[in-house]
Formats: sequence, structure tokens, C-alpha cells
Amino acid sequence: MANIVKIFDTTLRDGTQGEGISLSVEDKMKIALKLDALGVHYIEGGWPGSNNKDIEFFNRVKELNLQHAKVTAFGSTRRKDTLPEQDANLNRILEVGVPVATIFGKSWDFHVHKAIQTTLEENLNMIYDSVRYLKSNGLEVIYDAEHFFDGYKNNADYALKTIKKAEEAGADWIVLCDTNGGSLPHEVSEIVAAVKQAVSVPIGIHAHNDCELGVANSVAAVMAGATQVQGTINGFGERCGNANLCSVIPNLQLKLNYECVSAEQLETLTSVARYVSEIANMHLPVNQAFVGSAAFAHKGGIHVSAILRNPSTYEHIAPELVGNKQRVLVSELAGQSNLVFKAQELGLDFDNNNQQSRQLIEQIKEMEHQGYQFEGADATLELLIRDAYGQQEELFTLESFKILVAKHANQASVTEAIVKLNVNGQTVYNAAEGNGPVNALDNALRKCLVEYYPELRNMHLNDYKVRVLDEKDNTAAKVRVLIESTDFDTTWSTVGVSGNVIEASCDALIDSLRYALLGKERTTIQIGEQRERVGVVNH
Amino acid sequence: MANIVKIFDTTLRDGTQGEGISLSVEDKMKIALKLDALGVHYIEGGWPGSNNKDIEFFNRVKELNLQHAKVTAFGSTRRKDTLPEQDANLNRILEVGVPVATIFGKSWDFHVHKAIQTTLEENLNMIYDSVRYLKSNGLEVIYDAEHFFDGYKNNADYALKTIKKAEEAGADWIVLCDTNGGSLPHEVSEIVAAVKQAVSVPIGIHAHNDCELGVANSVAAVMAGATQVQGTINGFGERCGNANLCSVIPNLQLKLNYECVSAEQLETLTSVARYVSEIANMHLPVNQAFVGSAAFAHKGGIHVSAILRNPSTYEHIAPELVGNKQRVLVSELAGQSNLVFKAQELGLDFDNNNQQSRQLIEQIKEMEHQGYQFEGADATLELLIRDAYGQQEELFTLESFKILVAKHANQASVTEAIVKLNVNGQTVYNAAEGNGPVNALDNALRKCLVEYYPELRNMHLNDYKVRVLDEKDNTAAKVRVLIESTDFDTTWSTVGVSGNVIEASCDALIDSLRYALLGKERTTIQIGEQRERVGVVNH
Repeated sequence: MANIVKIFDTTLRDGTQGEGISLSVEDKMKIALKLDALGVHYIEGGWPGSNNKDIEFFNRVKELNLQHAKVTAFGSTRRKDTLPEQDANLNRILEVGVPVATIFGKSWDFHVHKAIQTTLEENLNMIYDSVRYLKSNGLEVIYDAEHFFDGYKNNADYALKTIKKAEEAGADWIVLCDTNGGSLPHEVSEIVAAVKQAVSVPIGIHAHNDCELGVANSVAAVMAGATQVQGTINGFGERCGNANLCSVIPNLQLKLNYECVSAEQLETLTSVARYVSEIANMHLPVNQAFVGSAAFAHKGGIHVSAILRNPSTYEHIAPELVGNKQRVLVSELAGQSNLVFKAQELGLDFDNNNQQSRQLIEQIKEMEHQGYQFEGADATLELLIRDAYGQQEELFTLESFKILVAKHANQASVTEAIVKLNVNGQTVYNAAEGNGPVNALDNALRKCLVEYYPELRNMHLNDYKVRVLDEKDNTAAKVRVLIESTDFDTTWSTVGVSGNVIEASCDALIDSLRYALLGKERTTIQIGEQRERVGVVNH
Repeated sequence: MANIVKIFDTTLRDGTQGEGISLSVEDKMKIALKLDALGVHYIEGGWPGSNNKDIEFFNRVKELNLQHAKVTAFGSTRRKDTLPEQDANLNRILEVGVPVATIFGKSWDFHVHKAIQTTLEENLNMIYDSVRYLKSNGLEVIYDAEHFFDGYKNNADYALKTIKKAEEAGADWIVLCDTNGGSLPHEVSEIVAAVKQAVSVPIGIHAHNDCELGVANSVAAVMAGATQVQGTINGFGERCGNANLCSVIPNLQLKLNYECVSAEQLETLTSVARYVSEIANMHLPVNQAFVGSAAFAHKGGIHVSAILRNPSTYEHIAPELVGNKQRVLVSELAGQSNLVFKAQELGLDFDNNNQQSRQLIEQIKEMEHQGYQFEGADATLELLIRDAYGQQEELFTLESFKILVAKHANQASVTEAIVKLNVNGQTVYNAAEGNGPVNALDNALRKCLVEYYPELRNMHLNDYKVRVLDEKDNTAAKVRVLIESTDFDTTWSTVGVSGNVIEASCDALIDSLRYALLGKERTTIQIGEQRERVGVVNH
């Protein structure tokens, strides 16, 4: 039987310390669902003692009924010279009602003196009291030994004393943190092995990527006996980020035969990585290991011809194992398994040999080439499939729009849109104001449509994101607009791509409205629902 | 005396296999100069047997009179069943007149059968003949053993035979390649040690990043006895890229006391990394280890207050050693200590008790409450601080703008902007087209300003991001626009928040232009310039 390594995800806590990353409570809820489906064992949701947004998350995450992951709240050991019962930060952890507490304390004598400015003895008491207090309240306690490696290098004796205190107080895990990210794999390996000798509690590793060694350090720790890895999706996190779970998990599982998640869950890794980067509005580098769109893309001519003979000549794993795909000159039936799945969901007989299917695959390939991405836009994909199979009647078409934005010095700006639609053969012409061009356009489109389709009153837009696709040409570059819409039951996403942000927005808006008009026929995957994959080829 | 590790840069060859990377001969010349100044030992300029652009580079690079680096040309061993004298690919290496040849051959029996389809014996002859031929023509020969680790794992005996053949033929270096990037550090370590036993020629390592372990594998190989590392600036390269020299070099030099380049050369690392990414037109991730703009950026409030006491509390090295700098991100998580730091950097006497400081704190708090976020927008923050301290004259003000977007059915849309500015007391009125409203506005603003400030011709926009702040109100919600601009030396970011995406964009655009006009007074990191830091504490 494979050795099990528990995955502790801190995308929602340490991940949000990364530059440019800011997640709303709603974003965090969505990501938590994905993480749960991926099969991580712990989801660190935030620091309730530090901000109220995190408290709201802990309250609301209970609604999700996660299947697999335990939710944990982060905090520090008690303040110096106080009682744990009077420590607001510890009490907040209890108040938010999580089953697991993750608290950090100081391992490095230098930090005890410089950062918290107390005695070595009082620091030991702070650790003991805090762990004890949380344990006595019935929580599972993960003790994060901050700066453990630096502390151990500086004063091994004291560093070991701190974690022995946590053990003595009943901690369920001791996690060794390379907080500054400055340690090398051989050091991590030696120190984890030494710790394994000194304590009998299970050990975890929390690595950062400041030396571009976050993944290597995590792997080294596991090989030396750690059985929990803390990290984030895509390696988001403070400074250079945390250990990237999207590389740690496949390395442990596919290369070293540890068991972290199931084989089926591992096949969702690429989609989780892309989903999280979309939600966080961060670029996913194309060359990211395992999950990047170029991770199995072959450019060199020699490579391509060898790959066509046998993929393992230039691929270290079968990309399907992590839900990614090979890309060669002729992009191989991009995303076809998703298409097959989607078409089956619609009750269509999707067959590679029929003409509609072939045309659809060509159309989607071409759109992906232009910058479309359907991972975050299921509704647009569904509309394309329905159109290809003639399953969708044209309920309205856009004939023209005009938008005017005017601003004078210190006055508020005025934005107006004029729209001309053909609805069921009738020309409908209307105008509306808005807080911006997209809002004005949205308002004008609805004004035209609601008299024919009153059910559109129930839908509204949830989220609107713009991403520049080609950074070379600055504001003249192509943009991809993602729009998320909702009525009371369902949430769906649509995408538009254009050199003009207004056109891209208009395309996504129109898809969103068309999708709403499908009514009960819609199949969009609900949040929290598992998606099955079809047609994986192993090699 | 420190052990010397030779750095072999293949940015100009393997680096250009990365998706989206394409370098002109001119680009390659510029990069070669930077690499030479950085102190790399070898610059692999291309594959003269594979394309003519590379031949032109080898002809022209001689004009540069590089001081330090040897230029090398890449190629394969001879074709099967031919003589080396008749092999065009080998002869091209001789013709381009380089002092060093780098040729690759097969180490993996599977590849001999599947990819080049010959006998194991003939492959050994191909290696011997090719190395011998180049040596007999007076070249230094680096033998790249392709797929060495996979080959060794599959058939160690044969893999060793191939490199022994290269040694026997007089190769000066044997470089073990993890071509598919699938090996782990402990494997690399063991195999390099075994090879050290088997041959006496110096050994090199060529790693790829498919497991996010390219740097770790390079470091492991050096610790096991390799004395040459092949890699690329920023880890550019096929699929997930090559080992990133911008991490390999500081790890070897600062952490393990090997000598690769001089301490002064190492201080240019950040500027080289940014320069190469500019030339290659690739986005340099802010969180890239050592050289990214967030590599020493602190967001968490606890970290910031500790950093102010002593930087080594949360920094693994002094950023100046690699030419980078500490940054404190101002965000709601952090609070006031971040602002103090920022002001100190500007040489301002920031005092919580003086009125300007108090007003500024209030203003920033209010703006953050409205949805501003300064952690991704250093330049806007700097302008606010300068304004508060009266350090900045008003060079222009916006009087009005009007934007018109019109679209008819299947025709391309038309976007126009009309702008009225007051520049140094003069009214300037102008109009421009664009691919979208922001592009049109940007074009019109510049048309007004360049006649007064011609230096603005050198700046352009790098990236543009829009984020909806309050998802409840759909397209009527507030949006935050982040704009990244560059003038080749420097990169800076600005932010705007409004209910109207155009107004938010306009605010960010204007800040971007105002910041550009600060010229030499800006504090953002300059590329290629060593910055003086205010209040830097060495550690």
C-alpha cells in the first residue's frame, strides 16, 4: 500500500499574501469547493483574528458541506505575558467553529528576541499554553513551527525544545516552516530526519519558493519522513510564493508513489489550477510545470517527429494523468474529452466521424487559437455545441450599438448606449444609461429584450473580468472578457475575445442572455458538482 | 579558495524554443553583451546547421569582442552511416568560426531504436567520430549526453558506454542532460556521482523544469561533482523551460560558496533578468525568485513590522546582493508601518505626528475603503505621497474627454476619443482612434502631451487589468483598473477605481503619464542601474 501524504492547502490564507492577489469571500467559497473536489485534506481559510472578511468566510463555508477537506483557521500563539483564555486571536479560532486550528509559534531564538521581544522561556510557555488551550477545547491542532530551519541552523537545541513543547501540549501535527524560503533540499532533508528522531508526532513541511526550491524542499521533506505538505495552488503566496501544490502532488504521486489524492482527482489538477488563476485574476504562466498550456507543447522539429512516433521520447509523464494535454503543431483535438462529455450531457451523439463534430472541433480550435478559453466559460461552450447541432433557435440578433462616454473636469461622467436588435423578426431600438459602457450596453440590451422575455428580469451579472492576452501591444492588444451571470438557481459563465474590450464584452453579454433564455434546458455544471472525464489515453 | 562552477548560457538557443519566444539577430547581440557582462563562461548562440539566422548571429557576434564568455555553436552528432567530414551539420559548426562546439548525442537505447532508428553500435561510432572530427579541427568540445538520466535508468551500462566514447574521442566536457525534465534531485545526485566514478572528464548538468525541479536538479548535480551548469536567463526554454540561471547562480554562490561570477557581476543579475525579459517581450513574473519585483516584497503586517526592526527576520538574503530591493506593499493587511517605509524610501521625514502624514494616512485609508489597492500600484502611491508633501508640480490637468464606440452588425467597430487638456496653462485639444475606448483615450492623451514632453514617446503600456469590486451590483459595480507601464528602463504600476471602467482607466492612465514625467526622480527599480536605497540595513 502506498504511503499517504496529507495535503494542506493555504491558497486562501498564505496565498492571498501574494502581490496582486485579493480574494472576496465569494471567490474563497468557489475555490474551497474546487479544493475539496481535488481531494486536499485541509483547507486553511484565513486568519479570523486578523480580519473580518475571514470570519465571514468561516461562517459561510459551512453552507458548502465539504465532502472531504477539513477547514482550518490560522492564528498565532498567545501574546506574551497573558493567559490563552484571554487571547482574542485564539478565541476567534474557537468562535468560528472549525474542527482544526493551525497556530504558528517561534522556533528561532533570534526572532524571540527581535520580533516578539520576550524570553526564550516565555516563548516555550506561549507555545505550550496555546496548543493546550485549543486541544482542551476539542480541536485538532496543527502547530506551524515558524522559521524552523533557520532556527535549527542557529540553535538546534532551542528549536527542538519549541516543538517538543508543542508535542507535550498535545499537538496533532508539527509542521516545519521554511518561512523565509532560504533553505536548500539537503538541509531540509537532514533537519527533517533529525526532527523525526526527536519527536513522535507526525511531521509536516511548509516551504517557500525564494530560492526556486519550494517544490524540491517539500519533496525532500517527504522523502525524509514528513507526511503533510502545506502549499498553495499555482504557488501563490508572499514574496516568491509558497510550495506549488500543482507540482508537489504529481511529483509525490506519479514519481515517488506516495498517495495524496485519487487518480481521478489528480486528473482535475490542470482544471483546478486554471480555475483558481481565473478567479484570482492572475496570469497562469504557459510554462508552468504539469498544468501550464505549454507544459506538454512541442516546438522543436526533432521533438515533434519523435513525439509522433512515441510520446514518451519527449514527455516525462502522460499529460492526461494531470488533466493536461499534449500540444503539437496541429493541436490534437483540443479539449475533446470535455466536448464529448458536454455533448453527452446535452443528449447529443457526439461522434468524431460525423461532419458536425468535425466542424465543431475545428471551430473551437480556431477560437482557442484566437484567445478563447472555455475552461472558465461553460455556457459559451454549450451554446457553440447547440449551434453546431442546430439545437438552438436564434431568438434575437444584434443589428448595431453605439456608446458615448463623456466627462467634464470634476463632474461625474455620463455613459449612454443605443442598441438596435432584431427580436423574432421585429426591430427593437432602445437606449439606456449606465455606470460604464458595459453596464450601459447591458441595460440597453435588456430594455430591448424584457418585453419579449420577462424571465430575464430574474438574471443579473455576478462578475466581470478582463484579461489582456498579448502584452506586447499594450492597450491595443486583444482582451478576453469573462462574465459570470446568475438567476436564483444557476450560475453560468460566458466569454468574449476581441481587440476591442467593448466588443468582447458585448459578445459575452449576448451569450449570457442567450444562455439565460435556454431556461430549464441548461446544463451548466453547478458549483460543487463533480465533473467526470472521458477518453483519457494512458501512455 | 571557492570551487569554480562554469556557467553555460543557452538562452539564445534552447531558450528560444520556449512558447512565445522569438529573438532577432539584433536581440541576440544585445543579450550576448549582457550575458558577457554578467560573467557567464559560455554563450550558446544557436544551431548553425538548423537555420540561417543563427549563422548570421555567429558572423556578427565577433564584432562585439566579448570580454569574458566563449561563444559556442550547437549541433548533433553525425547522421548514421556517413562520414563526419561529409556531415553538413558538423561542418557548419566549423564554418561559423567559434572556439567551442556543443554537440548532442543519444544516451538512451530506446531513443537509438525509436528516434534515430539505428544500432547501438553505430550510435557509439556516431559519437566518437563527431567528437574526434571537431577536436581534430582544434575546437573545444562539449558533449551533451541527451536523455542521459532516462537512459541511465533504463540501461546504465549502455548510457555509460556512450559518454566513455565521447571521452575517448577527446571531449573536454560531458554534460548530462535531463532532456524531458522528469528526473528528481536524488536521482540526479546518485547518477552524477556514478558518472564521476566512470569517467575523468569534467561533468556538466543540463536540466529542464518539467517537475519544477530544474534549479534543484542543477544544484544537486553540482553538489555531486558537476562543474558546469547549462541553463537560461529566467528559465526560458522548451515546454516548462530550462534550469533558471537567475536562481542557480545565486544559490550556488550565496548559499553553497561556489564561485560562478564575481560579487559585482552578481549584483547585475536582477537587471539582466529584466533586460532579457524586455528584449524577449516576455512578462517577468513578479514573484520570480531572487529577481522578481515581489521577491523581497512584504505584505503581511507582522512581517512588515519585524522587517523594520531587522530585515533578516523575513529575508533569506540581502536583496542588494542580486541587485534587487526590498519593497513593502501597502495594503489593508499591513497598515501604517508600510507607509512609513515607503515615505522613508522617498527621503521624506514621515512622522505620524505631523499634519501631512496624518492627512495622507486618512486619505489612503479612505481610498482603500473605496476599493483602491496600492500593493500593485507603487507609482500611484508614490504620487500620492509626493502630492501630500508638495513634492510634485502639476504638469497637466484633464479638462474633458468624450469617447464614442459604434458597431454595426458584422462590421468592425469604430472607437474614437476626444480629449481636452490643460498643459502648462495652455488648452490642448485632440482626438484619436483606438482598438477600444482605453486605447483610444491613451492615444488621444499622448497626442496632446508628446509635443510638450517628447520623452513620453519612449513609454508604453505593458498590462491592463480590470477587477470588479462589488459583485452584488453586476456591471453597475465599482471596478479597479491596474495599469503597468514601461519605458524600457523601468516598469511602474498605477491604479484607478470608479463605477465607470473608463473613468477608472483614465485615472490610472493619467497617473502613469505623471509618473513617467518624474523622470530620474522615480524610485521604482531601474533596469541596469544600481539604486541607492534609503534606510537599507545590511544583514
